[in-house]
Amino acid sequence: MLTVNYVGDRTLDVRTAEPTPPPPGQVQIRVAYTGLCGTDLHILHGSMDARVRMPLVFGHEMSGTIAAVGEGVTGWSIGDAVTVMPLDWDGTCPACRAGNEHICQNLNFIGIDSPGSLQGSWNVPAETLLALPAGLALDHAALVEPVAVAVHDVRRSELAAGQKAVIIGGGPIGTLIATVARHTGADVTVIEIDEGRRAQAESLGFTTVDPAAIDQVAWVEEWTDGVGADVVFEVSGAAAAVRGMTALAKVRGTIVVVAIHPTPREVDLQRVFWRELRLLGARVYQRVDFERAIELLADGAIPTDQVITRIVPLSDTADAFTELEAGRAMKILIDVQAGSNA
Amino acid sequence: MLTVNYVGDRTLDVRTAEPTPPPPGQVQIRVAYTGLCGTDLHILHGSMDARVRMPLVFGHEMSGTIAAVGEGVTGWSIGDAVTVMPLDWDGTCPACRAGNEHICQNLNFIGIDSPGSLQGSWNVPAETLLALPAGLALDHAALVEPVAVAVHDVRRSELAAGQKAVIIGGGPIGTLIATVARHTGADVTVIEIDEGRRAQAESLGFTTVDPAAIDQVAWVEEWTDGVGADVVFEVSGAAAAVRGMTALAKVRGTIVVVAIHPTPREVDLQRVFWRELRLLGARVYQRVDFERAIELLADGAIPTDQVITRIVPLSDTADAFTELEAGRAMKILIDVQAGSNA
Repeated sequence: MLTVNYVGDRTLDVRTAEPTPPPPGQVQIRVAYTGLCGTDLHILHGSMDARVRMPLVFGHEMSGTIAAVGEGVTGWSIGDAVTVMPLDWDGTCPACRAGNEHICQNLNFIGIDSPGSLQGSWNVPAETLLALPAGLALDHAALVEPVAVAVHDVRRSELAAGQKAVIIGGGPIGTLIATVARHTGADVTVIEIDEGRRAQAESLGFTTVDPAAIDQVAWVEEWTDGVGADVVFEVSGAAAAVRGMTALAKVRGTIVVVAIHPTPREVDLQRVFWRELRLLGARVYQRVDFERAIELLADGAIPTDQVITRIVPLSDTADAFTELEAGRAMKILIDVQAGSNA
Repeated sequence: MLTVNYVGDRTLDVRTAEPTPPPPGQVQIRVAYTGLCGTDLHILHGSMDARVRMPLVFGHEMSGTIAAVGEGVTGWSIGDAVTVMPLDWDGTCPACRAGNEHICQNLNFIGIDSPGSLQGSWNVPAETLLALPAGLALDHAALVEPVAVAVHDVRRSELAAGQKAVIIGGGPIGTLIATVARHTGADVTVIEIDEGRRAQAESLGFTTVDPAAIDQVAWVEEWTDGVGADVVFEVSGAAAAVRGMTALAKVRGTIVVVAIHPTPREVDLQRVFWRELRLLGARVYQRVDFERAIELLADGAIPTDQVITRIVPLSDTADAFTELEAGRAMKILIDVQAGSNA
């Protein structure tokens, strides 16, 4: 089989490897599709070299079918269509003991801290599996993981039907958050500086605001009849967006920090105090989010055609990353079996 | 009667004035004691010149007895011992309509936006009154307002018995938060850079940490068995404290922003994201907080002897501010009738 490896120095290497039978407690998955995401790009750019062990087979947004079942695994059969929630926690740290296993203080994020799904045959612990319903196509199912991120972010925000949400940043995750928020019954506005991304959000029916062209605070004030947004999702990762986000939220409104901010950011704490705002960090997902994401995809609630920009064979993974770097693609899926000599 | 006026240019002026009878819906209070607080100091320093109308009779932490009852006021009698919750909201703005009257978007903060209690006779709307129980001395009752701030901060944090709380900043409000948090059943540590304030906190039985001398993150890690603090109260107003506060909280822990931060502060949003932290702004109080503060004072749960540094006559108000500026006093009360020629 072929495997895609990050070998350091901004370099990918497609290698051949022999599939190994699943050890006890694990299953072997014939990977169908793997989506590329921002974290993969961070890995490729070397930003996570201190964390990852090279060569790393990466990839953690995926779908596939069970090819072999290891000793002691029950409830799963060869041929079952599955996706993987790529979190392997220790179950004993303070976070796990408090029920926050997804923030395990010794988390093994599969595909970052251990081998991922950019390989034809992939062994994973049976506990990480979720079954896919019959009607859900495997290419669409490769979106379960990023949709689960959006579901988690919206759930954590406690956004309710009839409320107004602002999403700052209209990339893949921002677009999925907007979609999930709208499906929750909220009115949604996407603030996005890039014209192409605004056009994409508009094609999905979202109201957009160009913060470089208009006064976003005044716009939100008017949109909300002087109240302010119930929830603001910071998905841009931009320092300027963080400086401005607090002015968009209503009294006791919620701001969810979704994006990665590698350095400390200036936050208007006076506004946090003055309006008794609530800032929440939101990281990955819990099992209930994965389950909901599968439901949303199976129900056709996610505009998969617009989200999936392209599907390319595994041998073209390096080109796909180049396209992703240019910032034009939403989501590129790797067809892991195509181009494989398995 | 005598009145203490802020007249601009960092200047106080003690003037004489004639008491006026209470208008309809108001009562006239014979003010007993008025506490000086950080906000009063801000006013005196000119930091709030854009907001206040001069000359301003300031003061908003007080106790007294009803001297006259205006037309239409029921339920109150001359001689009743009272304190005032100095918030006068419009009841119609979006915050009020959502039940957050204390953050009214057109709030009249009595003593800042309209005349306060540094005068022998003070007229206030009857709705702002709270009755004081017979056993509560009027000097102690002048602490109800700052204790209500602490009660509000602790209530908003959802701190529970058995949890661990870190208070950054051991000034008057930090000390009251520590007291209320301990009374809730929490274990409390006060982080304070000033030796005198640390000594004061220790004399009240609190564990203290000098962040200049030891690694506060390592200390909290050890204190909490690697978990992190359940709640962190940022009461210092210092940029360095804000940079460090996120490292002290447990996974899904809460940080309450109590202090005023006049300029945006650098916050480690990566940590907010990584640990799914919750940052909450907390401003003033709601009526339930005032009621609880009265109970705590009446029950002797607040160390009033240590909190009240000194009681001085109204004619010495300028000197009291000088002492407050030096940062050594916790709370100075003005005996409003002493030195008055009323």
